[in-house]
Order: sequence, then structure tokens, then C-alpha cells
Amino acid sequence: MQNYLHINDLDNLQAVVDEAVELKKNELEFGFLGKGKTICLLFFNNSLRTRLSTQKAAQNLGLNCIVMNFGSEGWQLEYEDGVKMNQDKSEHVKEAAKVIAQYCDIVAIRAFASLTDKEKDLAEVVLNNFKKYAGIPVVNMESATGHPLQALADAITMEENKVPHKPKVVLSWAPHPKALPHAVANSFVEMMQLQDADFVITHPKGYELDPKITKNSKIEYNQEKALENADFVYVKNWSSFKEYGEVMISDPNWMLTADKMKLTNSGKFMHCLPVRRNVIVADEVIDSRNSIVIEQANNRTYAAQIVLKKILESL
Amino acid sequence: MQNYLHINDLDNLQAVVDEAVELKKNELEFGFLGKGKTICLLFFNNSLRTRLSTQKAAQNLGLNCIVMNFGSEGWQLEYEDGVKMNQDKSEHVKEAAKVIAQYCDIVAIRAFASLTDKEKDLAEVVLNNFKKYAGIPVVNMESATGHPLQALADAITMEENKVPHKPKVVLSWAPHPKALPHAVANSFVEMMQLQDADFVITHPKGYELDPKITKNSKIEYNQEKALENADFVYVKNWSSFKEYGEVMISDPNWMLTADKMKLTNSGKFMHCLPVRRNVIVADEVIDSRNSIVIEQANNRTYAAQIVLKKILESL
Amino acid sequence: MQNYLHINDLDNLQAVVDEAVELKKNELEFGFLGKGKTICLLFFNNSLRTRLSTQKAAQNLGLNCIVMNFGSEGWQLEYEDGVKMNQDKSEHVKEAAKVIAQYCDIVAIRAFASLTDKEKDLAEVVLNNFKKYAGIPVVNMESATGHPLQALADAITMEENKVPHKPKVVLSWAPHPKALPHAVANSFVEMMQLQDADFVITHPKGYELDPKITKNSKIEYNQEKALENADFVYVKNWSSFKEYGEVMISDPNWMLTADKMKLTNSGKFMHCLPVRRNVIVADEVIDSRNSIVIEQANNRTYAAQIVLKKILESL
Repeated sequence: MQNYLHINDLDNLQAVVDEAVELKKNELEFGFLGKGKTICLLFFNNSLRTRLSTQKAAQNLGLNCIVMNFGSEGWQLEYEDGVKMNQDKSEHVKEAAKVIAQYCDIVAIRAFASLTDKEKDLAEVVLNNFKKYAGIPVVNMESATGHPLQALADAITMEENKVPHKPKVVLSWAPHPKALPHAVANSFVEMMQLQDADFVITHPKGYELDPKITKNSKIEYNQEKALENADFVYVKNWSSFKEYGEVMISDPNWMLTADKMKLTNSGKFMHCLPVRRNVIVADEVIDSRNSIVIEQANNRTYAAQIVLKKILESL
Repeated sequence: MQNYLHINDLDNLQAVVDEAVELKKNELEFGFLGKGKTICLLFFNNSLRTRLSTQKAAQNLGLNCIVMNFGSEGWQLEYEDGVKMNQDKSEHVKEAAKVIAQYCDIVAIRAFASLTDKEKDLAEVVLNNFKKYAGIPVVNMESATGHPLQALADAITMEENKVPHKPKVVLSWAPHPKALPHAVANSFVEMMQLQDADFVITHPKGYELDPKITKNSKIEYNQEKALENADFVYVKNWSSFKEYGEVMISDPNWMLTADKMKLTNSGKFMHCLPVRRNVIVADEVIDSRNSIVIEQANNRTYAAQIVLKKILESL
Repeated sequence: MQNYLHINDLDNLQAVVDEAVELKKNELEFGFLGKGKTICLLFFNNSLRTRLSTQKAAQNLGLNCIVMNFGSEGWQLEYEDGVKMNQDKSEHVKEAAKVIAQYCDIVAIRAFASLTDKEKDLAEVVLNNFKKYAGIPVVNMESATGHPLQALADAITMEENKVPHKPKVVLSWAPHPKALPHAVANSFVEMMQLQDADFVITHPKGYELDPKITKNSKIEYNQEKALENADFVYVKNWSSFKEYGEVMISDPNWMLTADKMKLTNSGKFMHCLPVRRNVIVADEVIDSRNSIVIEQANNRTYAAQIVLKKILESL
């Protein structure tokens, strides 16, 4: 594998999921693969799970890991071509990416959506410029439009909690006080489209995700109807895609409650974290035995590790 | 040893001190103990000695060490139960602690006192919630009410500078322009209560430490009288405990001077650092041959290393 | 080698350059040298290349590497003697340097010029105090007046691009919207003074560098005349030295363009990066085949590695 920018960069999702489940049994087995090699983790945004789990995965593979917070430890980058750089940007991504690529064998990048410039966000300006100029494998640690390490961790977690029938999986919007990006929802949708499942997205009208991503996935505006007989309920807030980055409604009735979970088939509760309790989900749901959010977070290590393993194997 | 939250988590202080002194002679001897294991250092506050010495100690033990500045690299945590999290806290400690615990084998935490909410500080909200939810060993890198790694380093330093008689040890308050926490003083008092020494605390009236900590320790309000024949003089500022977090007095006469040191039995000068020269202590004292502050700082490595060694041995 | 504060700390520049070129062929060959040893990188200013390449170099030598951002992770240091420290400085460099030195075997420091206090900048207050008190090898990762790791990387890059005659090398000032330090220009000048080359400095009047550094190096105020037949063109902005730290002129005509490069002998374009495109240099120059800025940045790893190797060999 050359890069991991998108869930579709995996040749065969199910095979990778199976391999990750196997890897967990002996996570240090491939500690020789990264010896003498270096990964740089570049954070343009804050992070907890991604920061720690990717370092852990790198360590498990024997990789030297260098972490840099670009905002506070570096400076602003210019991404436009041909600009007279006499304002607030100190370096062009052309130089930054080429230079960093010489100090490491793999570069992983977190660069959230601006939620103000739809065109630039959709163009994945940061990620794609690094890919274009770095010339070494690039890993997406959550970009403007996707979070494929999260989606892979989600797939691993669903595999470990699989039901003996074709599962019903619901992705439900939930309210949140701030405008949030679409990355996690997008990658979950794209991952589910690769699965043999009855997949339903539910959200208030006006919160439709990018139709280029949802494609033919079923959308049900009635949350309770969507939840009926669900085996997995993935909850997540996102801001409007059409009225880009706006919080059009924050109806508390969309919070996931225990009563709503009763509609499901003893459904598992999923969320990428961090989660706002009693806003996104009621305490009684996230604290229930059916909550698998901590397992999801744990699988972030193995999602990162299997991806880095595949990249190291093709270096 | 399961956790190191308090000096009393050590079964036998003297035995641990002796072991640390021995360890210094060959600090890489146990470099195999941490192989394949990870420690996360979580800083909710700034740090110099603790940051570097704990990393050094981890390295000496072969541990993989991941450092995270929670404030600038992560986000604010919620510690209250049942809260509707629609304000400035993005994640509950329940999730954060459980998640972090999956990426490492030991977690070490620095979380200072607020000095504004006495009840929460005394409850050690950050440390105790991590202990409650993480389920892995937790190490205190200075909490609201204690700094047991410092106290252990102090004990090691006093052992290395021991006198051939029962020592007189004085903990003296000194002035400081800002309100400081009680953690270092508390842990020093608690450590001294485990020692066979003539221990005296001296400070202006109104600066009494928590009586639940000082217990029967002798308090002498006359600094000069306290210093008479002292073998060790530990100087430290703290804010008022009764008028919680207030700076009630900053009498420059409480600064430790060479004249005052003449009252001692060629006493050793101790301080945890950082120290404000010519406010807490006169240059002539800290620069004298009797100053052992640099030795104290050096022993921070071995205090951390012996604690991590004992935790690793019980994993 | 005891310290690397200045390019002149190298016994023999050419020999070191040759050794670095050789080292690049097998950069992991000396991975045993740093085993069980630690380097601390202290950043008082932001950094990209220095941050990553020095970590990479340390890793290649098997060194444990601890990175600290002094400003955001620590606190302000006092450098004056005898001060009553009741203001904004929490710790004196005397303690900080001595303490840090106990946690590591080598300390590397980045501390830029203030550009407001010429006397202090010229005294290299941060670097020299660390050297004075640390008592362990100190490496300059760009100080107030010099950037010798950059100059060494530049020398390595020029060696790898050498011409079959005595080269003409031009250091040209270029405009920049902000006031920048003299460190890179100073160290380049001092490095060139050790080379057998026709070396010319060109800048507008008023931008003379410190005459104690330029000494007898040729200064040509006519940029085009200076560029004639140049084999290497090193472009860099700096603020006025005489009117210390001021931007007296920012004439866009001093930007390096393709037309100007036509005056050279197919000259190589050099810059330390980060560079502001179309302010310092036109896109067409930095994007041309004659641009070796990425090679320079790559050689930062080997400059650091050869310096650390020599220090480790003398420990």
C-alpha cells in the first residue's frame, strides 16, 4: 500500500480487518518491520486518541516516531501556487513537504476541515499537497473530508461484535453545541458501503451529507424508525453540508437515549469519541453493557498498526 | 506497587531509598524491565524537572514514553457525573482515562491545585478520576495536594547527605510574589513523618498547612528559633490553606539568608526548584557549598525510576 | 569536540564535510555510539527543519532524544546575576542549566536574537549561560548570532555540487516583510571564510553585517555585478545590524529572479528555508533544476549527525 488517505486505499477491507484482529493477539510480532525507519506525525489540529494510538502503533512496529504540532511548534504554510508570500504564511507546502519527506519514511497528517471554505475543504488542500510533494507514503489522521483510520477501527470493532445475521447498522446524527466536520461520518458511510449490511443514515432534514459520498445509501429522516431492530447504532454530530459548516438545528430530541435503544435489536452503541454526554448520548446508553466506544478507541491502535504494517511492507 | 499517588504508597520508605541509592550506581541495569511496555506522561500543567527526569527514568528502564500536554494538545475534560456537556468540556474523564489506559501500561499525571476550589483540590479530582477509570497504575507527577516523587527524591538526597546523629530538619515557608500550591510542602511533611528526625515546620501565622497533613508535626512560628542547629533546611513558599489560595503576607524577612544559615549546624539548603533567587533564598545560600538543590533535582530521575521499577515488577 | 556553538568549533571543516558525505552512504553505521545516552533539544523558538533533522540525526546514532519547548512547556528564565526575582522569571539559568545537564549527556539549544537588545544578542546570553553552567556539551540549533548547523549543511551541499574550478559564491540579501536575525548570514560568511572560494556579499547600503564577522570578505553593493559568473547564489534576508533589528528598506528589486540568475555561471540557488516565494526568490528560480534548497535541508540531518558523532566520540 502506497498511501492511506481513504478507506478505499485498502485493497480488501475484510481481509485487512481479519488481519488486524489476528495482529491484536501478538501486537509486538512485527516489531522488526520498522527498525531503522521513521514516521513523522504532523498535527495541524489537537488530538488525543489519534496522537496516542498512532504513536503506540508505530512503537509496536519498531518505528522511530517524531511528533510535531505544526501550529504551535512551526508556522503557517502557504498552499496556493504563484503567490507573493508577503503576508502571514512563512513557508510553502512545496518546500515543507519535500523537506519533511527527507527526514522520514512515512508522514501522517491531521488537518481538519475549515468549515468555512467548502471548496478548499473538498479539495483536501493540506493532505493532497503533502501527497503531491512529499513523495513518501502519507497517512490520513483525519482530514477535511475523511477519517479512514477511525473507520477501519470501527470495522474491526464491528467484526469483533458481529451478529449471526446480516446486521442492521444505523448512523444517526445527534445535536452538538459547536459546528463539527463531516470527516468521521463520511468515512463511516464509505466503510459501510463496502460491507454486507442493511445500512441506514438518519438525521434531520438539512443535514444531508455530501451526496457524492452517501450515493445510494438509505436515508431515513425518522430517527426512531431508523433505529428499529438496529444491531449497531453509530451516533455522531456534523454540521450542515449544504449550508456549509452551519449549525441549523440542535434539537435535543435527537440525543440517543435508553428509550430509543429499546427500539433496537440489543444494538451496540458506537461513537468515535470525544463525546459530549447527555448532549449526543445519554449517560445510561454510553455506560451500558452495549456501549463499545472504548473498544473502538482501543482498535485505533490496531487500525493504525495494520495500515503502517502494510505501508512498511511495500517500502 | 499498584499506584504511586502518595508517599505512603511505598511499603517501606527507607528500603526504597536504599534501593534507589544502589540503582544510581548502574542506572541501566534494569533496562529490560520496560521492554515492549509504554508509559504516558500527561501534563495538565507546565514542567521542567518532572518532564525531563521522568522521561529519563522511563528510558533507563527501557520503557516507551509518550508525552502529552493535555491543555495545548488535547482539550478540557469534564469530571462531574451526570452533567449535560454543552459547555467548554469536550470529553468526560470516564472516556479519556479508559481510552488512554488502553494505549499504555502506566499513566503518569501532573495536575496542579486550582487554589480556587478547595473542595475539588482536596478531592484530587483529576488524579482520583484517572485512578478510578484507568484501571492501570497511575503515578503522581504533582497533584493538587502532593508531590510524592519530589518527596522521594528529597529523601534520597537526605540519605546521601546524612549526618552521624538524629538530624534536625526544618521546613521553612518563604515569600513569593504569586500564590503557590501546597503539594511540595505536604509531601515533604508526610515523608518526614516517616523518618527518625527532629522535624520542625516554621511559617508566619496564617500559613498553617492542612492540619490533617501536619498532624503532630512541630510548628514553630519563630523562624530563627526553628533554624537553630538544623542539619537540613528545606525552604518553600505556599499560599494560605485556611484563606485558601491567598497570599496573606509576603514578608521579605522570611527569605533564607546566610546570616540565618549561621544559626544552623552547617545545615544543608534544600528546595524543590524552580526557585526565585533573592526572594525565597539569597544568592549566597543557594550558591554555597551547603546547597544541595542540584542533587535533589538529579535524584528526581532515580525517584521516578525506582517507582516505575516497582510498578513494572508488579505488572 | 566539546561543544558546537560556532563553525570554528570544527577542527577542520573540509575533513568534517568529507566525513559527512561518507556518513550519508550508511547513516545507521554508528547507531551504537549513542546507546544508553540522552540528548535534550531545548527550543526557545519555533522550528521545523532543525526540530526534525536533529531528532533524526540523534535517532541514527542510537541516542535517546527528549524534546522540550521551553516557552510553552516550561517558563521564563532569568539570566542576570544578583537579581531579586520577583517579576516574571520563575527560574534562574544557573539552576535550569545545571539540572538539565544531569538528565542528559548533550544539550542542544535554539534561542533566536531578540533584535531589540543588541548587547545581549551579541553576548549570546542564553547559549553562553547554558555552556557556562551545564558542564556538558552544548550544540547551537540557531542562536542570536549564528546557525552553525545550517552553515555545515550548506558546506556539505556545496561539496556535493562542487565545480571543477575555484567557485564564485555570492551571499545576497533579499527583501522580507519582517525583521529577521543575522544568524544564518553570519554563519554562512564565517563558513565561507574557511573555504577556498571567490566569496562576495551583496546587499543594499545600510544592511552591512557585523564587521567583526565579515572582516575582509568582499562587499559589493551592486547585486547584478555581484552575481556575474557566480557558481552558488545564497539568498537570505536580514534586518539592519547598525540600526539594530530595523527593516530600513525592502526594495522588491533585490528579489532573486530568473533574469538575474542568467548573469551567473549556471549558478546553484541556495537558501536555508523557510523561504517566502516571490518575495525572496521568484518561483521560477526556486523551482528550477539549479535550486538545491531541498538538498540543503536534507543535509541538516547529516550536519547534525556528524557533529553529534564527534561529540559522542569525545565523551
